[in-house]
Amino acid sequence: MDRDRFEKQIAFILEADKEKNILRQTHLTGHGRRENDAEHAWHMAMMIWLMREYANEEIDVGRAMMMALIHDIVEIDAGDTYAYDAEGAKTQKEREEKAADRIFGLLPEDQKKELRELFEEFEARSTPEARFARTMDNFQPILLNCSNGGSDWREHGVCLSQVMGRHARNKEGSQVIGDYIQGIIDDNVRRGNIEDR
Amino acid sequence: MDRDRFEKQIAFILEADKEKNILRQTHLTGHGRRENDAEHAWHMAMMIWLMREYANEEIDVGRAMMMALIHDIVEIDAGDTYAYDAEGAKTQKEREEKAADRIFGLLPEDQKKELRELFEEFEARSTPEARFARTMDNFQPILLNCSNGGSDWREHGVCLSQVMGRHARNKEGSQVIGDYIQGIIDDNVRRGNIEDR
Repeated sequence: MDRDRFEKQIAFILEADKEKNILRQTHLTGHGRRENDAEHAWHMAMMIWLMREYANEEIDVGRAMMMALIHDIVEIDAGDTYAYDAEGAKTQKEREEKAADRIFGLLPEDQKKELRELFEEFEARSTPEARFARTMDNFQPILLNCSNGGSDWREHGVCLSQVMGRHARNKEGSQVIGDYIQGIIDDNVRRGNIEDR
Repeated sequence: MDRDRFEKQIAFILEADKEKNILRQTHLTGHGRRENDAEHAWHMAMMIWLMREYANEEIDVGRAMMMALIHDIVEIDAGDTYAYDAEGAKTQKEREEKAADRIFGLLPEDQKKELRELFEEFEARSTPEARFARTMDNFQPILLNCSNGGSDWREHGVCLSQVMGRHARNKEGSQVIGDYIQGIIDDNVRRGNIEDR
């Protein structure tokens, strides 16, 4: 056992714990409290396994799950940028790259490279795993929001063009789930939860 | 797309959300609040990926991760039974089997069977994935507890024989991590965090 390597792995694992305190805008089912990044990633990884039959392309499910588990880790430094926060979006990339350097830098060199690649792949949607994981990243909060009658959209006064922007590429990961999400969006416009503009 | 199948998968995914409200006895790093089951499972699944090199046997990492993600789902009905709660342990098995029937029963038949098998495997330590995941189930709270100076042990007045009982089989999953945990336990007996009896 390489003690230095082991201690670096532990340092990363303990740092990751902080994700449990990064709150998102989504609320838990039953009109619960706001969800945190770790919970979101847990739910999303489980969904990747359970819904892998709907991926457009063949995926390495373990790889896609790990991508989900770590995709928000940069928010430990960079904070959560809400999907419809245009101001925050301007500096998001820069803040997140800096965070990735620091946080993945805690790992041994080979794992730093491995996880950074998973993170970049996810961001760029450059592999089948990334495309499917991105779709799940969108689907998970939609499910919670719908279970609460669409209140997260209403709370932020979100409009259809914003929602369509966010969800424009879901079908690259899964035609089935992309179509299902579109049905949900249409329904929530009809109900007035998403402003039709 | 089989709509009935899809709706069953969604029902399970939404039910799983309740795990985010099941609190454990472990506290987050930085002497934080108590951890919940979803956060624990997220952390553990990530650790399985990052530390897979220490598994005694070759594992299917995606399978081991999914096992980790769902291993506590029965606690939605059965509640969390603290590792050193002797009274709770008497009825734990019965409570958890009943919960497994109901919760996995939400899924389509093939996935109900698949997840129930993952759950039973984990409980029985009957595969390499299960043995490694069980070791990680023990390692994750130890890491958080150690980062807080062993306060979870002190708070519950836990003694060495209880800790050794809990950790007796770690080396079946990973010799390296089993040895490392033993070192932590010895150290915490010396420091008085674990009562030497």
